Amino acid sequence: MKKLLTLAVAALMCAGSASAQELANFNFGGRKQIVSPEIQGDSVTFRLNANYATVVNLYGSWLPGYGDKIEMQKGLDGVWEAKIALPEPEIYTYNFIVDGVSVNDPQNYMVQRDGTRYLNMLLVPGARTDAYKETAHRGTLAYKWYDSNILGINRRLTVYTPYGYEANPGKKYPVLYLLHGAGGDEEAWSSMGRAAQILDNLIEQGKAEPMIVVMPNGNPNQQAAQTMGLPTSDMDWRNPENRNSYVRSLCEEIVPFIEKNFRVIAKPEKRAIAGLSMGGGHTISASIMYPKLFDYICPLSAAGAATVEQLQALKKEGVKLYWVGCGKTDFLWEGNQKLIQSLKDAGLEHTFYVSEGGHIWANWRLYLQTFAPLLFK
Amino acid sequence: MKKLLTLAVAALMCAGSASAQELANFNFGGRKQIVSPEIQGDSVTFRLNANYATVVNLYGSWLPGYGDKIEMQKGLDGVWEAKIALPEPEIYTYNFIVDGVSVNDPQNYMVQRDGTRYLNMLLVPGARTDAYKETAHRGTLAYKWYDSNILGINRRLTVYTPYGYEANPGKKYPVLYLLHGAGGDEEAWSSMGRAAQILDNLIEQGKAEPMIVVMPNGNPNQQAAQTMGLPTSDMDWRNPENRNSYVRSLCEEIVPFIEKNFRVIAKPEKRAIAGLSMGGGHTISASIMYPKLFDYICPLSAAGAATVEQLQALKKEGVKLYWVGCGKTDFLWEGNQKLIQSLKDAGLEHTFYVSEGGHIWANWRLYLQTFAPLLFK
Repeated sequence: MKKLLTLAVAALMCAGSASAQELANFNFGGRKQIVSPEIQGDSVTFRLNANYATVVNLYGSWLPGYGDKIEMQKGLDGVWEAKIALPEPEIYTYNFIVDGVSVNDPQNYMVQRDGTRYLNMLLVPGARTDAYKETAHRGTLAYKWYDSNILGINRRLTVYTPYGYEANPGKKYPVLYLLHGAGGDEEAWSSMGRAAQILDNLIEQGKAEPMIVVMPNGNPNQQAAQTMGLPTSDMDWRNPENRNSYVRSLCEEIVPFIEKNFRVIAKPEKRAIAGLSMGGGHTISASIMYPKLFDYICPLSAAGAATVEQLQALKKEGVKLYWVGCGKTDFLWEGNQKLIQSLKDAGLEHTFYVSEGGHIWANWRLYLQTFAPLLFK
Repeated sequence: MKKLLTLAVAALMCAGSASAQELANFNFGGRKQIVSPEIQGDSVTFRLNANYATVVNLYGSWLPGYGDKIEMQKGLDGVWEAKIALPEPEIYTYNFIVDGVSVNDPQNYMVQRDGTRYLNMLLVPGARTDAYKETAHRGTLAYKWYDSNILGINRRLTVYTPYGYEANPGKKYPVLYLLHGAGGDEEAWSSMGRAAQILDNLIEQGKAEPMIVVMPNGNPNQQAAQTMGLPTSDMDWRNPENRNSYVRSLCEEIVPFIEKNFRVIAKPEKRAIAGLSMGGGHTISASIMYPKLFDYICPLSAAGAATVEQLQALKKEGVKLYWVGCGKTDFLWEGNQKLIQSLKDAGLEHTFYVSEGGHIWANWRLYLQTFAPLLFK
C-alpha cells in the first residue's frame, strides 16, 4: 500500500511543468513569497507584487465613502504595500487598482462574487465575526430548480435545511424566505450574507428556532446565476409588471414548491419573509399582495413603500412581527423613514432597527442575526 | 400596487452613488463600453481597458504549451485587443497578465475557482459543449457535512441527486463516487467539471442510468474549501499515511454516510468510483484496499499505480468495468502505461480510453461523458 501511494505522491511532486493545471495551485514557483493580507496586532498589511506599475490603489469596504481609496507604496523589491489600522471585526471586501485596472489579490484566495464583480475578502476576527464562522453543527445548502409558469422559465433557488433535518424525519420546520437585492442572485445570501453560518450558530446556541431558509433568485429575467446554457429572457427586471410577476411567482409557485418538497409547517405563523434593498421591496409587495401568507415581515434597507391603506389591510390579517432595519447613512434612509411613518399611521406595531453605516452587507448580516431569533416564537 | 413598485424602482434607479454596493453590478458608469470576449464567426476577440499598461498578454487553456501566451495590441483608445481564431468547441479558461500582474477580464463575469486561482471562462459553443449546458430536467446539488473519526474532523462533500429524486420517494439509486485532483476540492467537479450538467444531459437523453454522484474533498488536511472559521489541520496531504487515511474515510465513513442519508442501492454492482489525477490515485487505492466495495472503477489521468498481485486480488472479487482514461500528452502518460501493463499482466479486463491533449479539464469532462453511460448497466 505504502509503495503504491509513494508512487502516486512521486508522480505529483515531479509535476511542476507541462499542463499540470491543478498543480499550479500549490504555488510551486514561489507564489507564496509574499503574504497578503497580513494581520499583525492592530494593523493589517496588503501587498501586491507589481514591479512595473506606476500607481497602485487599495479599495476596501471599510472605507467610509464611495470611491475612497488608499495609495499603496512601492518597495525596492517591486512589492507595493499598504499598512493600515485594523478595522473593527467584520468581513470586508477589497481589491487593488493597478494603473487603472482592477486586480484581485493573488495571495488571497478568499474571493466572493458580488453580482458581476469579484472581490477579495478580509476577515477581521472578533466577537462580531464569530457568528459568521462554521460551527460544530452545520445545515445543508442545496441548489434546487422549480418551474415558474408565471415567468415561463425553470429557475434555481438555494435552500438551507438546519442540522438534524435528515436525522429527524418526523420533524416539521418553519420557513424563512430570504430575498437578495438588485445585482444579487440566489447565491448572494449564502455567500456574502453568510446566512448558513449565521443560522447554524444561532440554532446551535438555542437563540433561534431550527428553520428552513429559502433564498430564491429575485431577477425575473434570470433563471439562475452564472449559467452557460440558459437563454437569457429579454424581460426587463426594472419593469414594475415584471417585478410584480416575480412576487407572484414567489408566493404562488415557490412557497407551494417548498411546502411540497420539504417538511414544513404550512401556516402563516410559521412563514417569515425578509429581504434587502430590492428584496426589501419584494418583501413589502409580497406582504401586501398576499396579506394572509406571512406573519413575520422584515424589510431590510428596503427599496419599497406601502400606503397606509395597504398596511391597515395587512394589519387586519394579523402580523406577529414587522421588523424594519436600516443604516443611518443608507441612501434609502428617507424611503425607510416614510415606511415607518406609514406603519405608525396605519397603527401597525413594528420595530425600527437603526444601525450605523449604509447599504452594506455588514448591516444585512447584522440584521439577519438580530431578527432571526425573533421568528416563530 | 403599480405606484408602490414604481416608487421602489425609482429608489433603485437614482442610486448611482453612495455605498450602493450591489447597484455597481449594473455597470452604471459605463463598464459595458467594451465587450470581451466577443465571438464573431470563426474568431474571438479579447479586450482589456488598460491605458497605462506597457505589456498585456493573454493566457488561455486552448494554447498547447505551459506558459504559452498571446501578446495583445494596444489601440489608440487605450483598449488592448487580441483577435484569435476560434478554438474548437469547449470550455476554456483564460486571464490577462498586465505588466506582470494577473488580471481577470472585468467584462466577463463567468469566472471559476481552480483551487487558489480564479480564471475567466470562455465557452465556444458547439456539439461538444451542448453536454455542459443546462438542460430541461435538472438534478439538485447539495453541500453536506459528515463526521470523520478517522481524520478527526467534520468535512463537507457535494452530492448530486438526479431530477425526479424527490418526486419518486420509492426509488433507490446507484452511486458514483467522483474524486478531484491535487489542488481541487469538493467543488471542483461541480464547477470546472460541469458534472451536474453532464449527468443531467446524459440522464435526460436516456444515455445514463439516473444516479447519485458524490464529490468529496480529497485533501485530508481540509474540512472544506473556502471556509473562514475552521481550524486548518496541520496534517500534510503529501504524507502517504494521510492519503491512506483519506481513502479509509472515503470507504469506511463517506460510503456509509451516503447510504444512510440517501435512497441508494447498497450493493457493489451499484457502486462506482472514478477520480482524476490524485483522485485517480485515490480510486486505484480504494479499489485495492476495499476490493469488495466497487464493481466500477475509473482512474482518469491517474497519479497512482497498482501491482499485478493487487490487481489479481481485485479481479477475484469481481469487476464489471475497469476504465482508464488518459491524454496522449499528459505528464502522467507513462504512469498510466504502467497501469495498463499491470492490468494486462493481471488478466483484468479493462478499457484504455486515449484522448488528445494532456492533464486538462476538457479531458476529464470528456471522460465523464464517456464512461458514465457504461455504469450500472
